[in-house]
Amino acid sequence: MTALHPETDVLRTEYQKSVAAYWNNNPNDARVNTVLGEVDGLYHHHYGIGAPDLSVLEGPEDTRQERLVKELHRLETAQADLLLDHLGDIGPDDRLMDGGSGRGGTSFMANQRFGCRMDGVTISEYQAGLANDQARDRGAADKVRFHFENMLDTGFESGVMRGIWTNETTMYVDLYELFAEFSRLLKPGGRYVCITGCSNDVFGARSASVSWIDARYGCNIHPRSEYFKAMAANNLVPVSVTDLTPDTIPYWELRTHSELATGVEEPFLTSYGEGSFQYLMIAADKVGR
Amino acid sequence: MTALHPETDVLRTEYQKSVAAYWNNNPNDARVNTVLGEVDGLYHHHYGIGAPDLSVLEGPEDTRQERLVKELHRLETAQADLLLDHLGDIGPDDRLMDGGSGRGGTSFMANQRFGCRMDGVTISEYQAGLANDQARDRGAADKVRFHFENMLDTGFESGVMRGIWTNETTMYVDLYELFAEFSRLLKPGGRYVCITGCSNDVFGARSASVSWIDARYGCNIHPRSEYFKAMAANNLVPVSVTDLTPDTIPYWELRTHSELATGVEEPFLTSYGEGSFQYLMIAADKVGR
Amino acid sequence: MTALHPETDVLRTEYQKSVAAYWNNNPNDARVNTVLGEVDGLYHHHYGIGAPDLSVLEGPEDTRQERLVKELHRLETAQADLLLDHLGDIGPDDRLMDGGSGRGGTSFMANQRFGCRMDGVTISEYQAGLANDQARDRGAADKVRFHFENMLDTGFESGVMRGIWTNETTMYVDLYELFAEFSRLLKPGGRYVCITGCSNDVFGARSASVSWIDARYGCNIHPRSEYFKAMAANNLVPVSVTDLTPDTIPYWELRTHSELATGVEEPFLTSYGEGSFQYLMIAADKVGR
Amino acid sequence: MTALHPETDVLRTEYQKSVAAYWNNNPNDARVNTVLGEVDGLYHHHYGIGAPDLSVLEGPEDTRQERLVKELHRLETAQADLLLDHLGDIGPDDRLMDGGSGRGGTSFMANQRFGCRMDGVTISEYQAGLANDQARDRGAADKVRFHFENMLDTGFESGVMRGIWTNETTMYVDLYELFAEFSRLLKPGGRYVCITGCSNDVFGARSASVSWIDARYGCNIHPRSEYFKAMAANNLVPVSVTDLTPDTIPYWELRTHSELATGVEEPFLTSYGEGSFQYLMIAADKVGR
Amino acid sequence: MTALHPETDVLRTEYQKSVAAYWNNNPNDARVNTVLGEVDGLYHHHYGIGAPDLSVLEGPEDTRQERLVKELHRLETAQADLLLDHLGDIGPDDRLMDGGSGRGGTSFMANQRFGCRMDGVTISEYQAGLANDQARDRGAADKVRFHFENMLDTGFESGVMRGIWTNETTMYVDLYELFAEFSRLLKPGGRYVCITGCSNDVFGARSASVSWIDARYGCNIHPRSEYFKAMAANNLVPVSVTDLTPDTIPYWELRTHSELATGVEEPFLTSYGEGSFQYLMIAADKVGR
Amino acid sequence: MTALHPETDVLRTEYQKSVAAYWNNNPNDARVNTVLGEVDGLYHHHYGIGAPDLSVLEGPEDTRQERLVKELHRLETAQADLLLDHLGDIGPDDRLMDGGSGRGGTSFMANQRFGCRMDGVTISEYQAGLANDQARDRGAADKVRFHFENMLDTGFESGVMRGIWTNETTMYVDLYELFAEFSRLLKPGGRYVCITGCSNDVFGARSASVSWIDARYGCNIHPRSEYFKAMAANNLVPVSVTDLTPDTIPYWELRTHSELATGVEEPFLTSYGEGSFQYLMIAADKVGR
Repeated sequence: MTALHPETDVLRTEYQKSVAAYWNNNPNDARVNTVLGEVDGLYHHHYGIGAPDLSVLEGPEDTRQERLVKELHRLETAQADLLLDHLGDIGPDDRLMDGGSGRGGTSFMANQRFGCRMDGVTISEYQAGLANDQARDRGAADKVRFHFENMLDTGFESGVMRGIWTNETTMYVDLYELFAEFSRLLKPGGRYVCITGCSNDVFGARSASVSWIDARYGCNIHPRSEYFKAMAANNLVPVSVTDLTPDTIPYWELRTHSELATGVEEPFLTSYGEGSFQYLMIAADKVGR
Repeated sequence: MTALHPETDVLRTEYQKSVAAYWNNNPNDARVNTVLGEVDGLYHHHYGIGAPDLSVLEGPEDTRQERLVKELHRLETAQADLLLDHLGDIGPDDRLMDGGSGRGGTSFMANQRFGCRMDGVTISEYQAGLANDQARDRGAADKVRFHFENMLDTGFESGVMRGIWTNETTMYVDLYELFAEFSRLLKPGGRYVCITGCSNDVFGARSASVSWIDARYGCNIHPRSEYFKAMAANNLVPVSVTDLTPDTIPYWELRTHSELATGVEEPFLTSYGEGSFQYLMIAADKVGR
Repeated sequence: MTALHPETDVLRTEYQKSVAAYWNNNPNDARVNTVLGEVDGLYHHHYGIGAPDLSVLEGPEDTRQERLVKELHRLETAQADLLLDHLGDIGPDDRLMDGGSGRGGTSFMANQRFGCRMDGVTISEYQAGLANDQARDRGAADKVRFHFENMLDTGFESGVMRGIWTNETTMYVDLYELFAEFSRLLKPGGRYVCITGCSNDVFGARSASVSWIDARYGCNIHPRSEYFKAMAANNLVPVSVTDLTPDTIPYWELRTHSELATGVEEPFLTSYGEGSFQYLMIAADKVGR
Repeated sequence: MTALHPETDVLRTEYQKSVAAYWNNNPNDARVNTVLGEVDGLYHHHYGIGAPDLSVLEGPEDTRQERLVKELHRLETAQADLLLDHLGDIGPDDRLMDGGSGRGGTSFMANQRFGCRMDGVTISEYQAGLANDQARDRGAADKVRFHFENMLDTGFESGVMRGIWTNETTMYVDLYELFAEFSRLLKPGGRYVCITGCSNDVFGARSASVSWIDARYGCNIHPRSEYFKAMAANNLVPVSVTDLTPDTIPYWELRTHSELATGVEEPFLTSYGEGSFQYLMIAADKVGR
Repeated sequence: MTALHPETDVLRTEYQKSVAAYWNNNPNDARVNTVLGEVDGLYHHHYGIGAPDLSVLEGPEDTRQERLVKELHRLETAQADLLLDHLGDIGPDDRLMDGGSGRGGTSFMANQRFGCRMDGVTISEYQAGLANDQARDRGAADKVRFHFENMLDTGFESGVMRGIWTNETTMYVDLYELFAEFSRLLKPGGRYVCITGCSNDVFGARSASVSWIDARYGCNIHPRSEYFKAMAANNLVPVSVTDLTPDTIPYWELRTHSELATGVEEPFLTSYGEGSFQYLMIAADKVGR
Repeated sequence: MTALHPETDVLRTEYQKSVAAYWNNNPNDARVNTVLGEVDGLYHHHYGIGAPDLSVLEGPEDTRQERLVKELHRLETAQADLLLDHLGDIGPDDRLMDGGSGRGGTSFMANQRFGCRMDGVTISEYQAGLANDQARDRGAADKVRFHFENMLDTGFESGVMRGIWTNETTMYVDLYELFAEFSRLLKPGGRYVCITGCSNDVFGARSASVSWIDARYGCNIHPRSEYFKAMAANNLVPVSVTDLTPDTIPYWELRTHSELATGVEEPFLTSYGEGSFQYLMIAADKVGR
């Protein structure tokens, strides 16, 4: 694992330490990620999209949970595939970065699809370790690397990345600091893709349900407007924006039937339903020098 | 025709006068709009999208141009339909505004679809007159009105519009001034939809081909980034962004076969092809008070 | 009750409606405000400061809760007194505004102390009604009025207020919009005093405990930095800033002994203790024309 | 030739490559520069000012074009002289930079006048080569150097330049990026002088004639306001601003009589005449650290 | 005298009251203005430019002071004439405003030159009275009016002025507030001309000599940079900037010989000499709507 | 003495050279600092706070001045103590910086209180020398160092300081430049404490008395608002603001009785009395990365 910064520089605030501790300690909450990842070895830490096959709820009860797990995992992988679809033309000589890479699910998918160099960045030393182990096991360690670094200050050289994405990790950081760093890292014309939950400014302010999610994960969900303001301030220009809310609601409804349900399903479904929360994908180009 | 402002206030600069004169004088350039509008009485001043029926190029030569005209018109109407699809739920009691309404094509389509009140605004007194005549002929004059006003300063009350759109008219105005006015006019949560050609910042700067289009129409095509900066500065938050470039190129290719072709097809196809120009649709919500 | 705006303009967003509903419905949560207010008719909706008389916890058990209630009420009144101390020289001809006046506790205290004209503003029509009733009962209705208005857009004339305060109400609104309105309302040299809970930027971001409070009250606690940025942007210049956190912790500790405790005591004490939350008082002057 | 950056960093965008190609390929358009430069070896790529000697149009026809060429060249040299007049006191130990130096005409004039060190910067590798050859031939290669570099990112040390100018080259770059670099390069109190064509905001927007010039040269003429905004944002404070429009119109009129006329004379004369275009000189001081 | 605002609105701060008192009380300091004004009835409150006729210092001693007074007055009138030269084409139907008009010297000159309507604005009720009396005496009261108003908030309608100037009065106000008001008052394309002393940012900060001038007049001399920043923020775009410092130094040297010298000559000459102070003229156009 | 920068980089402008010369030449004005410092070897260059012991004015006349000197020194030391009280928890391993350290009075007090490493920065080479001599004499040279550096550009590494203060030195520099440097130097969560005289925006503008002080010291007193704007722009968030004006007036009154009085007492007392000047303490936290 590269060590561009000492640990004290990776985790500078009490808040960052608390987030790292949460994911390092692999809490009960993360069980859903683990169980689903075991399906095919792609460990995600994001949610799913698409029309679920509801027939998994029927049939023999003793294998229902297993069928449910596979279906939820399929929807999460579909989400990651959609994200990768928006990165543009990526070749084997390009370099991509996964901001908040967790145990590397989306990173491995990108490497498999494009054959490119992949750098995953996470403030969980534990997860970076697991992901690097898996890279070795997959024989991909020459191209896929995970770094115990803060995505706000990666230490990578300027202008080297052809693409960067964040898959449900922006709610842990300040967007202006984040996009300044991403803008620095991207080549001119490079692409950034972001999938995130965001509070919907149209509702008026952060609803109680959204705060409930924040309290649950110790995160700081941003309003939709904040993404566009912080991009405008950092030479990132949207080229595609898609509201994935209707595509993710069925995933959450299905998850209520799973024994892996954690209770967080309720504020998700409430806030999506009342219009105070949205599941958004933004693809943006880095412009200027 | 309402007269909220005297003419001297509608056309304040030499530039605005030159734009108004261009459209008032119904020049040869506008012939394509006229001929296509005669197909079904919906006069557009924008371009088309979608897969063309190329079979219109085949068959008897004496009716080929007629078939071509119908097909081009169908594609332009499809474009306007897509725009209207993004306005959200509009009911008969809502009020919509068409910024730069020309001879009213999209305005009439909106009124037919939603049954709502429609205000079209144009700095061409001639076009406003034609459109109001047509509203009377259609028996829609109680709900559909066209105003000889500047969309930068409409004179309408604040917070009255449920939706506003501009269909290829933003290249004639300053976007910060425009979006300030639109933000003032929209209700909280109101929707703005914009279809426009924009220069692609990724190219580096405005290409010669894009300047050729500017010179041809006396317009000022903005870079894509300018739209998002001006929205961020005026409480307009994107919810959907679509790059329509691949959908409009076939329209332009078809148009080269028409006797209505004006020569402008070449810089359009060149700039789309080299990546210096884009055909973009943005839907955004008005947030804040 | 004056009616400068129709109700639809007072409550423009779903969020504002939800806040108004919360306080209109006088929920169980508000019981603590009611019981404490009954002590002397000053109904507060804020918390207390100062050294508590811990002897109230001792002595006969049957009157302990009564003693506790009186002591908590004394501390809340002490807080309001401190706020009023920072308004500067106010005379009988001056006019003050209470932004988010609830049932009027602090407003009545100000009128009694300065003899000045008082305007309370609240988006709870129910509370405005109760407070106006009390003004009549106290024979103060000529000078003390409560308005069912949004403090973001009061409808009052510009430059008429000698002082404005908010006592734990800023977490329900956007600070930039709020301070723009306050800056408009204040005379040159007028004073604004704010007591509020704020998240401490030094912690790094909003902690889970602070989000728990947000979820509980349906509010949006701002970071400390936001107050100073929004003031700087609106011609409000601090002249006194005091961290009241050490002064309010004993109040919360005492409240855990009360049968009125609602459970919210725990996240308050946790967040104050870990340094992620602060209880702050800012006095600022309106400068410029 | 110094090589602070690899070529891929000098030309980062498609647009920059197209501009470099234009000047590298020495197109027909550049013939006027070449022929005029042959008069005395000072190759300019800008236009002229001052009262022309119209008698050159009279007399023997066979030498008229020769007389015209000399007169046009005299006016262009007069323009460069005026620019140099505004650099302030420059001594032999000072260092000057020519942003967009072409084949070095103004750079050689500055070196001759002040005896100072001169760095010319151009993205045309071809022109940098020609100019360095000439420096060697003139025996000035120790003091006058031309660099194949982008003036947006020269690679020179901070705070080393006593003066910088651009002579009709700013229409190829973003002014904010340019002035940030110039502000970095200049010593405190250093002087920047800019001669440029700019669109006149008073007209209302970029006129068709100005777009025609943009299309012709593949450039991006900025509005006058943009110069002052970008300077204000980058610690460059004007000390002298002169509208040279009336001084350059006779040059253009004279040029219409030359066989070197390229057709671009017409949009220049139209736009100057209608007030949509201006020929401006700005001298500004670098302030702050 | 029109009374758009009550006096309490014209003079809102203690500072404004102190400035008004200074000029109302016609202090000894103002004697120089009075004596020079008696030469021909044009009362100035600004300084002079141009080459003085030094022969006035020679010849009979008993009339030397008289000759000096006439010469100083001639130089001050020359300054006002230069200012008026930069207003552009003004016709009899145009309307001009003099911001800080004092006893009207420059206003009367403008009316005589252009035949236009003139509005002078001053916060000295005394001076406004004197100037209106003179307008009556000159038979110009129908076209030339002086208002006891604050130039930061004149109360005039928007977009009515063809030109505005300030002649050494901007050091009493905030430039951002001033230019916001001027931008509001000017027609699109209208012209603002400013002559002012400003501190020279190149020096590094306000020198002791400049502060001495501030202390002497109770004014707030701005740095040069502030003028350009405040214009850039308010749609005022410079078209001509001239450093008049070399043209005004001889005036000050001559004044040291006058018995009207007040001692302020020394800090003026020191600061001009050391480069910490400049005498600047800016002409700028109002752009945008 | 460390020499991170050559002298030409420490003193870049004429203004900075004039300030350095003032303090290097140890002028008569500085006599008060010297005499008071001799009391106990702590040389201050700031003023005092607190209730004076007025009995020093009574008693034997021959020792009255001596008693006065001691009392004034006591009040100045009390001021420095109050400043140090606001730095938060500082341990022996922390590093503090004194911006404008003069002859080191407050720096030595901090080292004595916290045992921490101390870096004093001053543009007076003379004072840095004296202070380093004293550090050696006190046996503290390993921990306390004084640098001939400009506090706008110290050359120290980023993020190393636990605390920084300025004690009446900010009136010599631009606050935006200063706070950018301080923000760079401070660790996340580090504290900045500022004691300063500032002009009171509520007065309306800088009064003549405040300009008199500026002229006297060659400084540039900032308005109060400027401090908060520059902090907001540089990630410095106030946590405590105190108006020390009432606490410093008695010091100034006492000083009028001293033979060390320099005449500056009068504008201080006038401006404090009329409300145009304030003595302010701000403690702020560095936030963000």
